[in-house]
Amino acid sequence: MSLDHLNSVPGVTAQPEAATSQFVFNHTMLRVKNIERSLDFYTRVLGFSLVEKRDFAEAQFSLYFLALVDKSTIPTDDKARTTWMKSMPGVLELTHNHGTENDADFAYHDGNSDPRGFGHICVSVPDIHAACERFETLGVDFQKRLTDGRMKSIAFIKDPDGYWVEIIQPDL
Amino acid sequence: MSLDHLNSVPGVTAQPEAATSQFVFNHTMLRVKNIERSLDFYTRVLGFSLVEKRDFAEAQFSLYFLALVDKSTIPTDDKARTTWMKSMPGVLELTHNHGTENDADFAYHDGNSDPRGFGHICVSVPDIHAACERFETLGVDFQKRLTDGRMKSIAFIKDPDGYWVEIIQPDL
Repeated sequence: MSLDHLNSVPGVTAQPEAATSQFVFNHTMLRVKNIERSLDFYTRVLGFSLVEKRDFAEAQFSLYFLALVDKSTIPTDDKARTTWMKSMPGVLELTHNHGTENDADFAYHDGNSDPRGFGHICVSVPDIHAACERFETLGVDFQKRLTDGRMKSIAFIKDPDGYWVEIIQPDL
Repeated sequence: MSLDHLNSVPGVTAQPEAATSQFVFNHTMLRVKNIERSLDFYTRVLGFSLVEKRDFAEAQFSLYFLALVDKSTIPTDDKARTTWMKSMPGVLELTHNHGTENDADFAYHDGNSDPRGFGHICVSVPDIHAACERFETLGVDFQKRLTDGRMKSIAFIKDPDGYWVEIIQPDL
């Protein structure tokens, strides 16, 4: 669909107000049961860096902010790093309510069965076949392999809580 | 917390594998009941641009991809725009299952009551007081105003489906 058509889809404001010109879609927040498993998945399997952690001891939860960036671009100064992290798009926030990891019956809802809502996050990779072979080698759970279903150019893997992570390649 | 401490949090792989170096956290997908209302909210209130739409007539759903970018940077060529859109961080994908907007009883789940999981998305703004005053003027629903609760530097507004959108200012 052409850009002109996209700009005339019902509901669309084709020229946003100047007031929104510096707005940034900064992050998406997911609750996770076992933070150690989630940090392992997002940093080792997907390459995110942990760029900020905030602990709320009294309310018994912690927040973890992750970004998929070149490590050399992360500010070492704590205050500068916070401002930097809040200014960029593509941050993932994980919320860990302390102790959920010790409850065998505890599980979060991935949004893809009733009641539905949130669907998935997506990581774009330069070579989807190489990426999926690596995920297989690492023992990652798949929701949909490249060979499953009709759409052969996308895959879905699952994070430790079962949240779906779509894998795409930009030029496919 | 210092970067050294962040790199030694249990579960964290401090130096990601080279295989992930070009990975990009591309998008987050939310299902929406009434696409016209959602497009109005995300383009007019928050300044997103609709950069791609895909229709699946047989399966009766459509996908809408939105990005918070300078309009002048959006490629006009359709193929180039698709590749560009899949290469950047901070894209929002909205899924519309056709006809849900006509069912008065239909509603999606925002993830913040049981069963919980997904929590919110977040938009960073240069001046949070100006942004929140504008949201009030526009009649946007608030989950938490700046003056509510303990944290006076963040707000939460609600999109037409009730999904929470956190509003932050990087240097606050």
